[in-house]
Amino acid sequence: MPTDPRDALRAWFLGPRAENAELLERLVVESLRDHVFWRRNYHPEDGFAIRETDKRQEGYEENVATLTQELMGLLAELKRDVPFFSGRYKGHMVGEQTIASQIGYFATMLYNPNNIALEISPVTTRLEVEVAGQLARMIGYDPSRSWGHLTSGGTIANFEALWLARSVRYLAVAAAGAAAELGIELPVRLPGGTTASISELSLWELLNVGNDDTLDLWDRLWGTAPHADVQRTLTNHSLAAIGYQEYSRRLAMDYGDPLPAGVVLVAATAHYSWEKIVRALGIGSNQLVHLPLDQSYRMDPEALWQRVNGLARRRDPILALVSVCGTTEESAVDRLDQVLEVRARAERELGITFHVHSDACYGGYAAAVTRRADGSRRTAAEIRKSVGDDWPADDWVRAVEALGQADSVTVDPHKMGYVPYSAGAILVRDGRTRHLVATDPPYLSPVELPAPGTERFLGRYILEGSKPGAAAAAVWLSHKVLPLDERGYGYLIERTVAGARRFHAALATADLSPFLAVMLPLPDINIVCYLLSHPSLATLRAVNDFNERVYTRMSLARTDGPPEYIITRTRLRSPAYDGAIDPILALLAVGSGDEWKASGAEGLVVLRSTIMDPFLAAPAPAPDHVNGFVGALRRACADALEEGAGAGDPRSIS
Amino acid sequence: MPTDPRDALRAWFLGPRAENAELLERLVVESLRDHVFWRRNYHPEDGFAIRETDKRQEGYEENVATLTQELMGLLAELKRDVPFFSGRYKGHMVGEQTIASQIGYFATMLYNPNNIALEISPVTTRLEVEVAGQLARMIGYDPSRSWGHLTSGGTIANFEALWLARSVRYLAVAAAGAAAELGIELPVRLPGGTTASISELSLWELLNVGNDDTLDLWDRLWGTAPHADVQRTLTNHSLAAIGYQEYSRRLAMDYGDPLPAGVVLVAATAHYSWEKIVRALGIGSNQLVHLPLDQSYRMDPEALWQRVNGLARRRDPILALVSVCGTTEESAVDRLDQVLEVRARAERELGITFHVHSDACYGGYAAAVTRRADGSRRTAAEIRKSVGDDWPADDWVRAVEALGQADSVTVDPHKMGYVPYSAGAILVRDGRTRHLVATDPPYLSPVELPAPGTERFLGRYILEGSKPGAAAAAVWLSHKVLPLDERGYGYLIERTVAGARRFHAALATADLSPFLAVMLPLPDINIVCYLLSHPSLATLRAVNDFNERVYTRMSLARTDGPPEYIITRTRLRSPAYDGAIDPILALLAVGSGDEWKASGAEGLVVLRSTIMDPFLAAPAPAPDHVNGFVGALRRACADALEEGAGAGDPRSIS
Repeated sequence: MPTDPRDALRAWFLGPRAENAELLERLVVESLRDHVFWRRNYHPEDGFAIRETDKRQEGYEENVATLTQELMGLLAELKRDVPFFSGRYKGHMVGEQTIASQIGYFATMLYNPNNIALEISPVTTRLEVEVAGQLARMIGYDPSRSWGHLTSGGTIANFEALWLARSVRYLAVAAAGAAAELGIELPVRLPGGTTASISELSLWELLNVGNDDTLDLWDRLWGTAPHADVQRTLTNHSLAAIGYQEYSRRLAMDYGDPLPAGVVLVAATAHYSWEKIVRALGIGSNQLVHLPLDQSYRMDPEALWQRVNGLARRRDPILALVSVCGTTEESAVDRLDQVLEVRARAERELGITFHVHSDACYGGYAAAVTRRADGSRRTAAEIRKSVGDDWPADDWVRAVEALGQADSVTVDPHKMGYVPYSAGAILVRDGRTRHLVATDPPYLSPVELPAPGTERFLGRYILEGSKPGAAAAAVWLSHKVLPLDERGYGYLIERTVAGARRFHAALATADLSPFLAVMLPLPDINIVCYLLSHPSLATLRAVNDFNERVYTRMSLARTDGPPEYIITRTRLRSPAYDGAIDPILALLAVGSGDEWKASGAEGLVVLRSTIMDPFLAAPAPAPDHVNGFVGALRRACADALEEGAGAGDPRSIS
Repeated sequence: MPTDPRDALRAWFLGPRAENAELLERLVVESLRDHVFWRRNYHPEDGFAIRETDKRQEGYEENVATLTQELMGLLAELKRDVPFFSGRYKGHMVGEQTIASQIGYFATMLYNPNNIALEISPVTTRLEVEVAGQLARMIGYDPSRSWGHLTSGGTIANFEALWLARSVRYLAVAAAGAAAELGIELPVRLPGGTTASISELSLWELLNVGNDDTLDLWDRLWGTAPHADVQRTLTNHSLAAIGYQEYSRRLAMDYGDPLPAGVVLVAATAHYSWEKIVRALGIGSNQLVHLPLDQSYRMDPEALWQRVNGLARRRDPILALVSVCGTTEESAVDRLDQVLEVRARAERELGITFHVHSDACYGGYAAAVTRRADGSRRTAAEIRKSVGDDWPADDWVRAVEALGQADSVTVDPHKMGYVPYSAGAILVRDGRTRHLVATDPPYLSPVELPAPGTERFLGRYILEGSKPGAAAAAVWLSHKVLPLDERGYGYLIERTVAGARRFHAALATADLSPFLAVMLPLPDINIVCYLLSHPSLATLRAVNDFNERVYTRMSLARTDGPPEYIITRTRLRSPAYDGAIDPILALLAVGSGDEWKASGAEGLVVLRSTIMDPFLAAPAPAPDHVNGFVGALRRACADALEEGAGAGDPRSIS
């Protein structure tokens, strides 16, 4: 596929004016008819269940009338939906969908395969395995060792990642119990590099065996006794079977050391769903430790080291560390390479270790930028030349390349994969991990563990059960048309980055007087954050109220007519953003960091524009939505100031 | 809508021979063009991002060629998918999808709304709330008090149900801690009907406050102190914040009574995903207590009472009881009314209580059978007359009517709602429950608790985040065309029941000699289970191998040509099926129940046919797939016998 992506880009989407409508309609009709003829040709001798004369019956006709009428009603309603397709939408991380994914979804939905098991999805389970392999290769995993699958979205994918992480972390404890019961001895490699006998290890040491060493240990255990005995004794000591309540009690008894509650370290920018996840898993939100940010909104590696050190001193086990590749609010990319260095140092100097997960739900597809057509890596300089800007920094490429060393990575095709909802994905570096959470459905006969990629039954290893094969086909077809490298997704995401940088520069330099745009730093990918101020706004609360009003005027919540452009907003709060906020507060001149810290849930309202529009950077011949936006923003500011002054609201400005 | 459903039925589906292809194509093209014109008319002054001349570029053309070619490849592959639409498919619980749901999904997918928040799904979040209200009304909840939403499927819905149940169960403990910290006293109603002061209650008593009383207590607590203080003190004592490890320790200290691990009671027929769920939640699979079945494959209420009694004596708290409405394997409907009576008796006689959940993922839509067009209940006699058979028994109607008293119910539109994957649903009787698991996204400002049905932000209350608005629209449109009563889903499901009974009778009476069909009892809904035997099959293993071979010949796994009909199979194992198996073993004459019990994972292979085809009961003018099936089964048996004899396999028959 030697296609020039600059031209191909214009065939990837239906287009903001539905320019490719004919193409999509042709493919839709073709897919539908193809399916229809499949039904017609399937045992033609079966005759017809619905005759033409049936269609003349009153009941039939009334039903068609109801269906048509209600559909027309739905279509009319949908005109009040959000125009994600338009260059005028600059809000959340939703944009166009690729034509390939739309048609892949629709065509396959007619067949309605269920990827829970190969028996009811002989085609699309294979496509799902293939897609997982493509994503694994993109982020730098070895597809023959790793494993992955699609989920309904990022939250479930992240949930599974932490569920798997916990299962690995407590596995050495279960193995020690099993080995004792079986009367066998096993060597275990410790983080420092030394080897010890499993029966000699303290609880603290067992909880700090590395992932690979734990899985190797587990592999060896199966060779020491009959399968059923290993299974039984492992289960006797596994957290999954025993449950937290009894498990804690038993470890306190067995090791004379009550198990300290394991913590989960997350970037302060981590998605709010991590709190749901630790609550649901029974870990508890008190054990969710948010790590400080640096001024680029990335996890601060030095602060991480200090924290890890402190936890080790207090002998608090670390279940997992969650780094982010593309934060939801700012698209910041943690320096995962430095995070991994902190772990290596902790192994060497402190004798502890932990699972490293990268939540790349938003940013994962950006790894396509680092791939040449042949799969090899592009240099940062090569990418910068292609983008025509000083993005990405060498550091950024190192951070993205480090994804291949994370123990697990989640990446959502329904975000920067530009496919319809719902499609998330989880990838684990060592595919053996999945067996730790396997549950057998009743109809499976006793089987040996299948090798990665040969699963007949995904439902055995994943949290969800029934799942749409159509989603797998949508992602698969989209990857066929837009490969996960510089020719496809890489180029697409480069264009959004170029657009975001143009947008950022335009806001930073625009004459908005008497208003002032305060910009957050240039984003690591393509989410631009900013806020507006005015000399009359003297307090944090006044600035927030003003920006909320600007937001309302630039959202579909506006009641006095459609907005010219649509944006969204977030709130930066203390302590999560303590490390990053000072430069912003200084520019706003609305009090010190201390006041901000004291504001609690109020925090700082920040406006947000996710640039998913690939045409923004070089808009010709279409209208320039950067200049258009700046004008609209100025008008919204003026209206918001006037509205605030008129509101007589105690919160109003000045 | 006075439509006669007998005629309307023929307009509901594309049809086994795609008889309604013109209708579907018309609606698909109309929906697509409607969307296209929306784009065209949205700010017409914006010009075009893709010009006609761009479409003449080599890169563009090559890309279209790639897309078309790969799509053709996918369409060809899909011909190897499963013909769920055909009367020849008699396997898993997947059938046709309604045209309404197909077109609702497709039309809405073009807009790609995300029901995580109203801001990016202003139309479809409303449709989702509406759909939840319709399902609530169908099962007998008061929509103004209850709450519900769609999920990606049954596993996530059931997961949420147990997560919510746990949150309610431990809430009184948190409230007691908060009240003590705030220095206030609160009256609490106990299961026996007496009232006590919260500070006087033992841990055991706190864990046995009823759901409604717990939520009332919680409501009262908010009135006793400022919002922030209640929030803080409740959090200080909540399991969600503290996590199991520290929580167990703290309760042991505070109450001088280590918290016994809470158990979850489930029907022995409960879906295997319940094991996943208790493992992931940290409850542990050892705490999953399977209850015995009666000979109708339903939970045995007397055995339940005995078990509850035993648990109360040992002071093991019961987190929740899971009853099933439509088991995955047999479509058995537990006598939920009797289960609820057991709970009432436990409250009266033992002073204990627990959350009652009905897993109606499969059977929930059958509640539509009990509804007249005006929403009132049909009598069992009325339904029997309409079905033209002796189904349902009065008992069945009582069991289904009892859904309205369950604390939570899960029901999957993507099963008997005949909509495309993925759409599950959870309903809770008391909508206040959802606040117990709420997590705030960063951009929400501090808000008051919204009333049910007014949510702007579903993601706050649910496990998942991003979710397809298209799924909500699909279910919504389908409910518009097939109402949840005798005119729509009720009639549809009646027809499948009638078909299942005809199928069951035909197999039971067919002359298959020398083979014998051993039938499981008539199903409570529409899944028929059976197995085949032959005089030469003298052992359980021989019967299993034979039935596995029959299954293979009647599945897509068959390699010597396409199967005439497609079925599936399961394994009944000890101890889950101990209460139901004896009559089957007696008919097979292959050893006693003891031998079966000793067979462990081997169990008994049973063939399964889910009858989702509404045309099976009265097939004219189409071919009779009951008679056709019987013939195909006889041929498969003969082939399987021959194959077994020829295999020389140590497992082969005689």
